[in-house]
Amino acid sequence: MEEREREKTGIRDMEKDRWIVKVSPEMAAPSLKDNRGDVDRLLGGLRKALDGGEVSIDFGLAKRIPSTLREYGYELQAVLYKDTYSWHLVELFPSGLEGSIYGLAADLGTSTVVIRLLDLTTGATKDESSFLNPQVEVGQDILARIHFAAEKEGLARLKRCLIDRLNEEMAQLAQRNNFGTASLVGMCVSGNTTMTHLFLGLDPFWICREPYIPAINRPDLIKAAELGVALNPESPVMVIPNVGSYLGGDLISGILASGMTHQDEISILMDVGTNAEVVLGNREWLMGCAGAAGPALEGGVARMGMMAGPGVIDQVIADPETGEFRIRTIENKSPVGICGSGLIDLVAQLFLAGMIDLRGKYVESKCGRRLKEVDGVNHFVLVSSQDSGTGQELTLSQPDIDALIRSKAAMYTILTTITRMVNVSIKEIRNFYIAGTFGSYIDAQSAITIGMIPDLAPETYKPLGNTSLNGASMALLSAKAKEEIYEIRDRLTYIELNVNQEFMNLFSAAKFIPHTDNALFPSVRPWSSTG
Amino acid sequence: MEEREREKTGIRDMEKDRWIVKVSPEMAAPSLKDNRGDVDRLLGGLRKALDGGEVSIDFGLAKRIPSTLREYGYELQAVLYKDTYSWHLVELFPSGLEGSIYGLAADLGTSTVVIRLLDLTTGATKDESSFLNPQVEVGQDILARIHFAAEKEGLARLKRCLIDRLNEEMAQLAQRNNFGTASLVGMCVSGNTTMTHLFLGLDPFWICREPYIPAINRPDLIKAAELGVALNPESPVMVIPNVGSYLGGDLISGILASGMTHQDEISILMDVGTNAEVVLGNREWLMGCAGAAGPALEGGVARMGMMAGPGVIDQVIADPETGEFRIRTIENKSPVGICGSGLIDLVAQLFLAGMIDLRGKYVESKCGRRLKEVDGVNHFVLVSSQDSGTGQELTLSQPDIDALIRSKAAMYTILTTITRMVNVSIKEIRNFYIAGTFGSYIDAQSAITIGMIPDLAPETYKPLGNTSLNGASMALLSAKAKEEIYEIRDRLTYIELNVNQEFMNLFSAAKFIPHTDNALFPSVRPWSSTG
Repeated sequence: MEEREREKTGIRDMEKDRWIVKVSPEMAAPSLKDNRGDVDRLLGGLRKALDGGEVSIDFGLAKRIPSTLREYGYELQAVLYKDTYSWHLVELFPSGLEGSIYGLAADLGTSTVVIRLLDLTTGATKDESSFLNPQVEVGQDILARIHFAAEKEGLARLKRCLIDRLNEEMAQLAQRNNFGTASLVGMCVSGNTTMTHLFLGLDPFWICREPYIPAINRPDLIKAAELGVALNPESPVMVIPNVGSYLGGDLISGILASGMTHQDEISILMDVGTNAEVVLGNREWLMGCAGAAGPALEGGVARMGMMAGPGVIDQVIADPETGEFRIRTIENKSPVGICGSGLIDLVAQLFLAGMIDLRGKYVESKCGRRLKEVDGVNHFVLVSSQDSGTGQELTLSQPDIDALIRSKAAMYTILTTITRMVNVSIKEIRNFYIAGTFGSYIDAQSAITIGMIPDLAPETYKPLGNTSLNGASMALLSAKAKEEIYEIRDRLTYIELNVNQEFMNLFSAAKFIPHTDNALFPSVRPWSSTG
Repeated sequence: MEEREREKTGIRDMEKDRWIVKVSPEMAAPSLKDNRGDVDRLLGGLRKALDGGEVSIDFGLAKRIPSTLREYGYELQAVLYKDTYSWHLVELFPSGLEGSIYGLAADLGTSTVVIRLLDLTTGATKDESSFLNPQVEVGQDILARIHFAAEKEGLARLKRCLIDRLNEEMAQLAQRNNFGTASLVGMCVSGNTTMTHLFLGLDPFWICREPYIPAINRPDLIKAAELGVALNPESPVMVIPNVGSYLGGDLISGILASGMTHQDEISILMDVGTNAEVVLGNREWLMGCAGAAGPALEGGVARMGMMAGPGVIDQVIADPETGEFRIRTIENKSPVGICGSGLIDLVAQLFLAGMIDLRGKYVESKCGRRLKEVDGVNHFVLVSSQDSGTGQELTLSQPDIDALIRSKAAMYTILTTITRMVNVSIKEIRNFYIAGTFGSYIDAQSAITIGMIPDLAPETYKPLGNTSLNGASMALLSAKAKEEIYEIRDRLTYIELNVNQEFMNLFSAAKFIPHTDNALFPSVRPWSSTG
């Protein structure tokens, strides 16, 4: 009976781990015998509903309480969130008003922003939406934006355009799901260090200048109104903390999402973009490093390379019997370009077929008439102009391959270096988590074939999708996960990659397919060696 | 050596009890080996300087930190304050900048506002100033202001005029003492419940309506900027909490200032104004009540009555030999009126001289030609028109005395009732503290003579001056005193005075001079009985 009572009025068991909750405080109406002040009366009811937790009410909100209590006849629902020290009131709703409360998780990518709508009571994902980061207009990459931020009004413009776009998208999500934005009562934002700085309106000036200092590593919860985000004004916005300019909140939430810190086994989490970020560790320790891997994998280098989208080639398989190349495109549209996973497949197949050698150079005798010289540069024709969605041939040039090889060599060298620095053999890695949408499409065997990642059993490789968004969602829904974010941040040791002669030697050795030391890649067998 | 080091950089011993402090955090300049974010670097330095206390920085302030740290070359002084959970940054100053930090204690009286400037490092009082509460213009008394607050823009105007006037006064204090308002970093405000509501811009509507509910009992610390008070914007403003509509923060700080809660003996604290507030208690318990005592004592009734000021009669002594009345005026100016203490003296002397009887009625045969009838009402001429500073006679009418007797009877009845209710004999009272400027001027024996206060040994009566201001000053300077304020608030039990037949009987019995029961006032001896 008491439990049922609690179910109705107080914090429910299923919400015990929530840090944003809706409760129904019980309050006696004021009388001569009970003449507590309005705010103090509400606080008393809230403390009881929250099992005795401390509660504080922002002064701006406190002003409205006397009239609100009387309007609702002392029967109401309250939304609160918890920070390190106490609960804070977000909003009061009249008792009996149906409807849940919602929160948003956001992954602020440099190129793409993804937001996810979560029901904060059930924890269910209600909706998701993504859009091009509007900051792309003033700067394609992070460096361009940092420079733009230093111009007059630059920082304010970068912040404004992102938040305006976010607000539009939120309003649409709310409308599509039939609730008002007053029911949006929390947000958790993940992104690289520059992106979260721009979101917060913090000057990123020192991020890209030695010794590379962020304005802040670990922002406290900030009120939506203070940021201009169109949630309920008193809602908390959590920004996932960073470890420095190079290990951002997106990686921290990725670590949370991977679960690697709960395991005894050693895992690697790899996030590949323009930078490659690599985290190594387990329950006991956690090391991370970041290094330039080159933009080849993001579709930024190959002339036909592009981001995933309709008609983009995301898989290439060559038939050893016929020598034919079969492609798969997104949504089965006519091919218009190739994305990272397709490129890795293609280069792997070219190598297995002997059409490129171990330095990645085209072998004219094997390529035959698929090879074509333009301005003295070899191009491999993957799709003829007749079959192409653009009306033009889709080709892969020698420099495209060279760039990919530099990227994959950088990636492999980073992996080798960090494991050496922490004295772990690559063979000890039990889980190799691949973060990012890119990781979900990549074929592990192809990546092994070109020597981008170590030759571990394919099931070791676990694509996790958008770990930045998943981690942010977890932190928004769970007080425990939220605390874990801060623990991970404090535990994660940043390793400065020592780009010395040894690193350069390793890099040179990795610039072959799969590697100068073939013994490292026993599973890679060119057709000629098997056929 | 380590201690000396601490003296220089960290929180000093003498500041251990301060909750607003200035410290000099030590910080390493950023390097590749130490790439902490700017805010986190500062937080690290602050935590160390504060002996490991938790510190948080408001987001608005955090934004300025990267440029401020670099401007000051990572050598700076920080002002912080402590709330229940952690320290909060108020301001950063460059290292080596001389000068202290200052705070203001304020007593928001319905008629007069007094502010006191305190050096927050040494604890010294630097200056003091008082001014007429500008709200008097729209409403003389509390009720008028509550009604005015309900009008359009009324509340905002009441708040604005008070705060504007406060800000002017603060600026003058700062100028007079040669520092900028950026060095004003804390404030503690005491006042009755309506006054603190108006200061905070909280609607006092329900304070004067049954069941008399304040908007808030215990406000958290509020930032100066949020209130519009012209301290450093991030400075904390503490408003002394209330126990209800009738026991205000002025009384709570009075209790603190009296020290009665540190004693085993039972004390009474009495604050007399339009309302009489009485607190009874000791280390163990604390009871308070409030009742209408009538405005006679505040100079609001007697036609010649007025607030203390130059030329106002504050003492009257009659010579039993000659029957002459000698008066003392403030600043020895020609007499222009009489204040509460003078009025009590006068009536006491009139009674002792037999010029009024035990009902307070003029005895014509004793008064002789000093008595004068105007419109059928007896007036006692205290000062002739020749001697008067106004050019007019200063007289005390029969209705003036009647009003004073009702007031003193109410006061005595309240004292009798509360001691009976808590089962304490008046004889057990060891300290009888009298709060307020009024109390400093009052002659205990005169007040005993008219039967306003019990016939205890005169040394039992201890005028404490402006206890509201003194308590606010203590709470501003001492973390312990600040905590004690909240403890006192929580411990103080409000006793609803039961105005029943018994109360009315006691009241009737007290409407005599000194009382119907002369045995209660053995020290009161009319001249006739002694001469």
